[in-house]
This record gives sequence, C-alpha cells and structure tokens, in this order.
Amino acid sequence: MIYLDNAATTRVYPELNETINYYNTERFFNGSALYAEAAAVSRDLKNARENLLRHLGGDGGLIFTASGTEADNMAFFCKTFKPKSRIIISDIEHAAVLNTAAAFKQKGFDVVSCHVDGGGRAVFERFQELLTPETAFVSIVHVSNETGAVNDIEKIARAAKAANKDCIVHSDGVQAFKKIGVNVGKLGADLYSVSAHKIHAPKGVGALYFKKGMNLNTFIYGGGQEMNIRSATENLAGIAAFSKAADIADGRGIDRGLLPRLKDFLTDNFDVMINTPEEDISGILSVSFAWIRSETLLHSLEKHGVIVGTGSACSSKKGVGRIAEALRLPKKYYEGILRISISGDTTEDEIEFFKEKLLEEHAKLFKRQKGN
Amino acid sequence: MIYLDNAATTRVYPELNETINYYNTERFFNGSALYAEAAAVSRDLKNARENLLRHLGGDGGLIFTASGTEADNMAFFCKTFKPKSRIIISDIEHAAVLNTAAAFKQKGFDVVSCHVDGGGRAVFERFQELLTPETAFVSIVHVSNETGAVNDIEKIARAAKAANKDCIVHSDGVQAFKKIGVNVGKLGADLYSVSAHKIHAPKGVGALYFKKGMNLNTFIYGGGQEMNIRSATENLAGIAAFSKAADIADGRGIDRGLLPRLKDFLTDNFDVMINTPEEDISGILSVSFAWIRSETLLHSLEKHGVIVGTGSACSSKKGVGRIAEALRLPKKYYEGILRISISGDTTEDEIEFFKEKLLEEHAKLFKRQKGN
Repeated sequence: MIYLDNAATTRVYPELNETINYYNTERFFNGSALYAEAAAVSRDLKNARENLLRHLGGDGGLIFTASGTEADNMAFFCKTFKPKSRIIISDIEHAAVLNTAAAFKQKGFDVVSCHVDGGGRAVFERFQELLTPETAFVSIVHVSNETGAVNDIEKIARAAKAANKDCIVHSDGVQAFKKIGVNVGKLGADLYSVSAHKIHAPKGVGALYFKKGMNLNTFIYGGGQEMNIRSATENLAGIAAFSKAADIADGRGIDRGLLPRLKDFLTDNFDVMINTPEEDISGILSVSFAWIRSETLLHSLEKHGVIVGTGSACSSKKGVGRIAEALRLPKKYYEGILRISISGDTTEDEIEFFKEKLLEEHAKLFKRQKGN
Repeated sequence: MIYLDNAATTRVYPELNETINYYNTERFFNGSALYAEAAAVSRDLKNARENLLRHLGGDGGLIFTASGTEADNMAFFCKTFKPKSRIIISDIEHAAVLNTAAAFKQKGFDVVSCHVDGGGRAVFERFQELLTPETAFVSIVHVSNETGAVNDIEKIARAAKAANKDCIVHSDGVQAFKKIGVNVGKLGADLYSVSAHKIHAPKGVGALYFKKGMNLNTFIYGGGQEMNIRSATENLAGIAAFSKAADIADGRGIDRGLLPRLKDFLTDNFDVMINTPEEDISGILSVSFAWIRSETLLHSLEKHGVIVGTGSACSSKKGVGRIAEALRLPKKYYEGILRISISGDTTEDEIEFFKEKLLEEHAKLFKRQKGN
C-alpha cells in the first residue's frame, strides 16, 4: 500500500508501541494518587509537557486535550467574550474552527470570515478591513489542511493586537507542527492547537498552547488536572508517545523535493490546477483535475493500493464544494480536488508508482467519459 | 507490588497491547476518509459501539468521549435547561459531577445536593424532598468511587420522572460498569457515563450512553463524528481496547469474597469504621482508622510494595475532608480513610500480605504516636 493521505492521519511510528505498552501495563498509575508510582507518572507527564513546549518554542503553557478539534474548541471558550464581540476566522478553516465559530454566531457573536486567495491563504488586506476594536477573537489556520497554504500568523497576530490589544489570537497548527518550522513565541499567537496523530503518534491526543500568564476558562470540570482547565485522568501513554514522536520527527522529516517534482509532472501531463501556493508545497499538494470527480479518481487509484485524499477527511464525506468555492475554482475543476500528503516514510519510488497509475487510470476515466 | 487501588485506575490487560498496536500501526486510517481502509475503520468502530451497548444492556446510543469526566460534563450540557432550573446531585459525587454542578450554580441554576448516609448512599427520602416540578436534571452516582456504595438508580429515576416527566436523569457509572451488574435499560437513567481505564483498558477513552430517541446538544464542534455531538478523529485503538476489555471482564471478575473477609479482619483487629455498606462490599472497601492519618498509613504500606488509596485519586491531593464530612465520621476517624479496591487479578495471598503489613505498620505508627 502506498499511503499518500498523511494529512488525514498518520501511521504511528512502530517504535512508539513500546512506549504505549509500557504506560498501559507497567507505569499505569493514576498521577493524582499519593504513592511514589503516581509521582513517577506525574514526573513523566511533566517531562512530556516540557519537551513538547521546547518543540513548540514557547515559554507559555500546554494543556493536553483528546484531539486538535478539542484544542480548537477550547480556544474559542478560553475567555468569556463580551456579547456581540467580533470573531474573525477564514473561509477554509478546519471544521473544528468553522463549526465552533458557527455556534458562536448562533449565540449572537459577530462572526465574520476572511476570504482566501486561490491558494487558500487568508487575504491579509481583507483581514485588516475586518479588524475592529471590538474584535475579541481571531482564529486563522497556520497551515491549511486543505491546500497546505501557510498563513503568516505573525503578521496576522500583530495586526489583530494593533486593532485591539486584548484580542485573543488563535491558530490551528495541527498541519504545521513538525511539518514546517514552528516557533509559537515568534508567531505571537496567544493560543495554538496541535494534534498527535498527524505526527505519527496515536489518535486521542492533542494540546493547546497558551501564552505565558494567560488565564483560561475551565473547559472540562472535574478533578483539576491540566491546570484545572481540562480535567480527566491523564492519558500518559498517548501523551508520552506524542512527545517522543516530536523527537523522532526531527530526524525523519519529509523529502521536501518530492511534491514540487510531482507538481511539475501533473501540470505537464494533465489539465489541472495546482491549488497549493508554489512556495508552500512541502508535505501537502492539492490539485484539481478538470472534468473529473475526485472520488472516482480516488477509487481508481485505490485498486492499485494507492491511497490519496480528497481534502480534509472531516469534510470529505460532505463533499468538497465548500473548498472549491472558497478557492473560487473554475467550474471544470470544481469536483476534481485531490490532496496528496506525504510523510517522512514516503519514497521517490512510491511517487513514481503513483504517477504511473494516475496516468493509466486518468486515461481510462477520460476515455470512458468521452465514450459517453 | 500488590496493587489495591483499582478504583483509581487499572492495569491494561496485557493482551490488549496487540489490539492497540494493530490500530496504531496497521489499521490506522481516518474513518472519515473515502477509501476502503477507512470504511474498515468505521466498521470496527461501529462494532465496538454495538458491543459496548450490548454490555450496557441498552437500546439507546453511545457517544465515545476521552474520559468518564468528559462524559459527565457532556451529560450536564446535554440540553439547554431553562434558567434557574433545579439540578440535584448528591454529597459524594465524583469531582467531575461536583464541579460541573458548581459551574451551573454559578450560572444561576438552583443546584442542590442530597445528603448521603454513613455508607455514602444518597438518602432517598431526602432526594424526594428535593424533587420539584422544576427539577430539570439529576445526577447521582451509581457506585460511589469513595465507598463503593450502590445507589438505587432505578428508584431515583422513577421518582425524578414522577416529579417532572421531562427531567433528565444521569448517573456516573464509572465504578459500576463491569464491576456490578449494569443494565441501563432497567436502570431507567437517560444518560450513563462509563470509563475504559477503570476496566483494564487504556486511559483517554470514555463514553456516554443516552436513551433511544434523545437529542443531545453538541459538546465539541467539528467534523461531525459521534453523531455530531463530539467531533474529533476517533481514537479507535482505545475504543476497540475498551470494547475487548468489556468482553474479557466477563470471564475475569473479582473474587467477591475477598473484601468481605478483609472487612472482618479489620473490625476484629483495629479501631476502625467500615464506610462501605455491608451489602455493597465487592470491589471497593472504604475503612476509617481511628487516630491515624491515612496518608501516613499509605506511605508505610508503600514501603512493602502494597499500594492502597485514600479515596478518589482526583480528590486525594486536596485532602479527604469533604468525604469524611459527607459521611459524618466521628472526629477520631476523620483523617484515617483508606480505600482498598481490587481487580480480577487480586489474590487471597496478596490480601494476606496486606493484612500482615497492616498489622505491623499500624502497630509501629500507634507506638510512635503513644511515644509522643
């Protein structure tokens, strides 16, 4: 199997099995208890937190969650905003941000969305127009899960703070962390979401970074774990694996030449539009094929054991219309978005096989269509 | 090591490592994607859900969460209750219920707490007095994590519905599921929380059962997973392990004679009060020692590799005062609560060793105290 949908989820590094099994069956204690074994659990948790903070490059804090989605939700609920305050998101946010924003709109907040350019980047001039002194919260994705476009969070955060110094700036960094260089200190966002299963650690683990000195509303009430923001017995098996995956990732990065070369092949051989901005092509390549439904292409490739995506897994079952619209794709490309996303394990040979099968299957599909 | 704090958390069944590793490194796909591998993930998720529903004995639905705590929180947020509605809990609820209720009180709800008897059971007559036609929500623990007392949820639910047919009845079943017979259909609660790590499955997984036909508020917004109540890429490794653990538990139950015999030994040899109601002693035994701080006793036993609890792990670091007060313990027993909780792996020999060391250490502590 050639797995090219690493933006949807990744295979857990096999060497993490040992870590996970260890915390499940050996050091399995409840960190809130009073005996030494529990203290060891607390210490390992502290170490994992500090290690991930080091990887993130921030001097603030980290709240472990069960997912990037939960971290995004937590960000929105971090403060009690004044009624009707403005909230700004962008047109191609992940569903976790998009649908939380919609819930805030329902509650009477002035939620506005910044349109994106053809590559999926929030248009900065438009963002500035939307900023008001009443803007309480901004949430703009760092790396788009749809196209891989990289937003300039530093610039966005600076502008937001200039409009309202108390504005909270959040960025969903789920597709950025350990995939592009991330330094939350430098980005200047108050809140930053990450997810374990996008970097070869298990599902069920995420985290929200918060700037030093910030006080957050409690999101889940209970025994007081995670600084009383998010109670629950800590999932140390998952958290320790997340921390180790970040370490491993540094030595096992993706081959950043693979997708730019694939892009050239695609534009040379097919009627396609490349959605990912040229300079942002590294781990994700979004491409739209003319006159073809991406789902059909996906299933044709699947027969050869090649797995690609059609955009965010979370939105794929609901069709890709929202993204095609946000990118303002010409009609003929509207239904043909394919997302190829690689990992550190992806090889040139795999991409070659993908190319070969794509040529083959695309030709078949086109022939069939012409035959109709 | 002799681990007698299974109410805090349990060791994951070693045979589940294989299941967990399989879903982490083999069937690791995102269930929301469109290819066959993703469909297999969805199918396995469906099977785990159905299996757990079968174990719970209900014809309603199950929403997977990241913890029992999250399930408890979700229960409180399940509906938008009328402002100032009455909410009833009991005096020794788990912190997840206690602190969520406190948050609702802050928001202006009429939160009242039913006192408990000396064993930790909500006093039914008092509960009935508290019921009003404005009672919108009731949350009473099924098996107390502090004493092991079993509340008659069936009776409680019936009374609540009689007072207000629209009243939502929730029970935290974290210490009940697979420990005593649970049949949610028979219990008549609308909502019921369970947790994986209390039954030898990994941390980071819980679930909320809901009665057939109920519509719940969204708790976490996003890609629409878990019936759009709780979005996030599903943690199938943890969920499948939870489901398997429920199967395994049926054949590996606790020896229900162990703790009643231990109780006799304790009352014969020490100045103690047994907190757990006689007829409810099965997996948890709560006992209060006179004139001794439980923390001191815990550390003395720990030196011999015997691990016991001092009550809920979540509240242990904050002292046991709340529970001693709720149980109205005589002053001399106030600080001496020890909680012994067993698993299917606990043997008679282990309990014998515990008894021996308890005699030894208790004598030493008493001598030292008398010496002072």
